[in-house]
Amino acid sequence: MTSRTLLLYVQYDGTDFAGWQMQAEHRTVQGELTRAVESMVAHRVVLHGASRTDSGVHARALPVCFDTDRDIPLHGFRRGLNARLADDLAIVDAVEAEPGFRTRSAAVAKTYRYLFQVGEARRPLWTRYAAWVKRDRLDLDAMADAASRYLGDHDFSAFRSSQCDSRTRVRRMYAATITPIEDAPLVAFDITGNAFLRNMVRIMAGTVLDVGRGRLTPDHVSELLRHGDRTQAGPTAPAQGLTLMRVHFEGYPRLGRSAG
Amino acid sequence: MTSRTLLLYVQYDGTDFAGWQMQAEHRTVQGELTRAVESMVAHRVVLHGASRTDSGVHARALPVCFDTDRDIPLHGFRRGLNARLADDLAIVDAVEAEPGFRTRSAAVAKTYRYLFQVGEARRPLWTRYAAWVKRDRLDLDAMADAASRYLGDHDFSAFRSSQCDSRTRVRRMYAATITPIEDAPLVAFDITGNAFLRNMVRIMAGTVLDVGRGRLTPDHVSELLRHGDRTQAGPTAPAQGLTLMRVHFEGYPRLGRSAG
Repeated sequence: MTSRTLLLYVQYDGTDFAGWQMQAEHRTVQGELTRAVESMVAHRVVLHGASRTDSGVHARALPVCFDTDRDIPLHGFRRGLNARLADDLAIVDAVEAEPGFRTRSAAVAKTYRYLFQVGEARRPLWTRYAAWVKRDRLDLDAMADAASRYLGDHDFSAFRSSQCDSRTRVRRMYAATITPIEDAPLVAFDITGNAFLRNMVRIMAGTVLDVGRGRLTPDHVSELLRHGDRTQAGPTAPAQGLTLMRVHFEGYPRLGRSAG
Repeated sequence: MTSRTLLLYVQYDGTDFAGWQMQAEHRTVQGELTRAVESMVAHRVVLHGASRTDSGVHARALPVCFDTDRDIPLHGFRRGLNARLADDLAIVDAVEAEPGFRTRSAAVAKTYRYLFQVGEARRPLWTRYAAWVKRDRLDLDAMADAASRYLGDHDFSAFRSSQCDSRTRVRRMYAATITPIEDAPLVAFDITGNAFLRNMVRIMAGTVLDVGRGRLTPDHVSELLRHGDRTQAGPTAPAQGLTLMRVHFEGYPRLGRSAG
């Protein structure tokens, strides 16, 4: 029996999800999506996501794949799934992958954006997608300097949750930037790396923020990468500021192009 | 007894509000804000808003004023009110106005943004703030041409709700532009005018969208401004795409500067 592997790009507002991974008691992205796919293909499926986002974290284009023998055309999947999914979850693109393609092993890098809203007063139009920093301003130059310290190969032991069970802690960062957005009091921390430890982006963001507030120096970030002491890094920034922007595949540049 | 007039700039996510104006049975911006202000000043207040937004419409910086004799400093008002308000409503700035200042009579122009998300699939990250247009693309040049027809003095009879009871229908538009936003499939229709009839911006947006879809021509918009037939204009675009961006005051350029 010939089989297809479908690759979906999934966007969601993570506010009302208990993260990606299926859980019996909670509403999760994998759970909702599995139910929708199974109701279309009429057989059990296992959804393979490229990343497991935490509760409250958003995704602009999370690649998810599954195998099926069903002959439904791509646009039929996209429309049928979107009709079955709630407002806060949708398939933004669907493509055929090579049979047996797996997003997790094919992923060579991921890009995340962490968004801060900066000001004495919180901005309700950014409550869902940015963490509020109650200050007039941040030192953006110091933040950019701090972010650049993440570039390259480092042991990120200081930047992982105590629940992280990864044996290797060396990761490679390809890009790390600080960008003020428009005239609004928004600051984006964008980071691209080959892989990330548990809570790593949120701790990186919390540390860069502490530099922006003057609590830490950029040199302190370099120190953290040398000694690996989690207690000396910044706090884990709140989930709602984090969005998985894109997953990069080797040999699949076309697949990652349009989604998002 | 000397009296102060305070001018607040209010931001809200309109999704869960039945608009600005106080109603006994529904959650409204004026209702929530009045309750918060009265709990601080300990006397009855009447809140004067510069605009009455419809149910579901957002505001980035709506000017609202009220009179009080209380000696509470400005930052105290801002902090105290924000502590009393829910996540979807906040005071982004508070300033002293001349005693007796009224936002509605002082307003000389208003700027609105209407946001479309364009694509075969809806984008959950924009569900709350943009209206989905289920198409691959829109003709942005034609939309910009159509928007420019609104500029100047016109009778906007074709662009008002049947429930509009305004006796004069001539309004003056100062700016009307179409802007694609970033690489995301978002298109903004920005309009600034001296005043607007009921549902006027949403009908203007729906008409510009019909031009972008090829259902109407830019010349048709000029026709609408001549004959004033509402049935020949586009549909009223959904509330969630609309945001009141700014209210402009004569002689109060400083007041409008930083808020938003």
